[in-house]
Amino acid sequence: MARRLHRSLGMSRARAVARPGWVHLVGAGPGDPGLVTVKGRDLLETCDCVLYDRLVNVGVLQLASRDAEHVNVGKMGHGTQVSQEDIHRLLVDRARQGLAVVRLKGGCPTVFGRLPDEAAALRAARVPFEIVPGVSSALAVPASAGISVTHRGLASSLAIVAGHCVPSRARTLLRVAHADTIVVLMGASSLPQIVSEICAAGRSPDTPAAFISRGTLAEQLTLRATLSTLEAEVAGAGAHAPAVVVVGEVAAAAEDLTGWASCLSDSSSAPTS
Amino acid sequence: MARRLHRSLGMSRARAVARPGWVHLVGAGPGDPGLVTVKGRDLLETCDCVLYDRLVNVGVLQLASRDAEHVNVGKMGHGTQVSQEDIHRLLVDRARQGLAVVRLKGGCPTVFGRLPDEAAALRAARVPFEIVPGVSSALAVPASAGISVTHRGLASSLAIVAGHCVPSRARTLLRVAHADTIVVLMGASSLPQIVSEICAAGRSPDTPAAFISRGTLAEQLTLRATLSTLEAEVAGAGAHAPAVVVVGEVAAAAEDLTGWASCLSDSSSAPTS
Repeated sequence: MARRLHRSLGMSRARAVARPGWVHLVGAGPGDPGLVTVKGRDLLETCDCVLYDRLVNVGVLQLASRDAEHVNVGKMGHGTQVSQEDIHRLLVDRARQGLAVVRLKGGCPTVFGRLPDEAAALRAARVPFEIVPGVSSALAVPASAGISVTHRGLASSLAIVAGHCVPSRARTLLRVAHADTIVVLMGASSLPQIVSEICAAGRSPDTPAAFISRGTLAEQLTLRATLSTLEAEVAGAGAHAPAVVVVGEVAAAAEDLTGWASCLSDSSSAPTS
Repeated sequence: MARRLHRSLGMSRARAVARPGWVHLVGAGPGDPGLVTVKGRDLLETCDCVLYDRLVNVGVLQLASRDAEHVNVGKMGHGTQVSQEDIHRLLVDRARQGLAVVRLKGGCPTVFGRLPDEAAALRAARVPFEIVPGVSSALAVPASAGISVTHRGLASSLAIVAGHCVPSRARTLLRVAHADTIVVLMGASSLPQIVSEICAAGRSPDTPAAFISRGTLAEQLTLRATLSTLEAEVAGAGAHAPAVVVVGEVAAAAEDLTGWASCLSDSSSAPTS
């Protein structure tokens, strides 16, 4: 049946082309350039201007047209390199110049990505735009470390939270501390606080936990421990951001599964910074 | 800086090629063929055999080589069309014949996808394999309906659960019922029970909720309501699986944001069944 459809419909694969005067909000995926979507790559290859975040891998950036303008609007740690308002101004300005703009965001732009803010600014300026989801680091990075976040029999619920310092983080973690698997994004710099907040919310310090830095890239480093020992493991290994933290039984199961996950393409390279 | 790197490193984009005797476990993404990863498409185009699930879109299947064998191993509702054990046997058999095999799974294979079972079977048979994550429906489908699941100010935590009938579902929902946003996959057929389980766990019946069927495809239908009114809305519209359910304030915010999400490519078409 599928083969018949295949033949009758033909190979109508329209290649996406970045549109002049538009902003395409594109997910760059977790790092490996092979994990960009087909549409995302098409748009990068045909855009006039790409505005990218700090966590976007250089290999992904290289997919953009050589002739396109590259603008780094990455934010550094807690500080701000380019303010959110300036990002909005840049997006609107470039689109109004008639350029085909790609706004490239690490992972999936819908996950902790200030997407609604940028979309609202574009709407207010009457600049047309579209959203192209990407592969989220919250799922792909554990996978590349051999961790299936919803491993049958071990995890029927998955919670995803952002770990960077916000006043409400402890309250957020309290709400989801008993999900079978907790994935914390952007948690490297606040790891001790995050661990203590999860334990304060009632999760045992003996719960398995993993810290995965530079996930899906050749330099990927995975550290496995428990909540109580994770911080020392990370400090001992000198591991750092960008990193994904996984808490729950699935993090221990990974020990049996490493080796089966290899989503690295040959074109992987170091992230931009 | 990025442009300089771009030039010095050159365009070293190695195209992925499916390997004889290997199984590539590939995420098909949420439906739109443009949301397959570059690596996933490369592997589909070069494989000898593709084993696919029921929820994989026909447009994605069309990416596979014309000459490849297409095997539908989709499971129908609660019943089983091809048993999990038979899927394992098919994968091992085709790989041992020296074929380059793609195992194509809807969304991201790491999310409720029996991935560890298939990986374990391949390991046991000493068949080499790799995992290629995909764009998860849990994130991309809400996005295509204009819902940012971690909308700043409205949601700092996101829980993802599987809604198909399992004995432990009520207990699972109890653990994550107070996450700011709850995304339920495969929940269409058990919607009334899921709603009552979330309410029984203490979530207000007035909590905004959305039901999105055939997300990212041209036939996408989005229904917005509250927990208490969602079932009637869905029944009234005759909406059905495949669907993603979103619970939380972000589902109401979407009303202000629809129109800004357009991730449909021209090549979208109806899912296989």
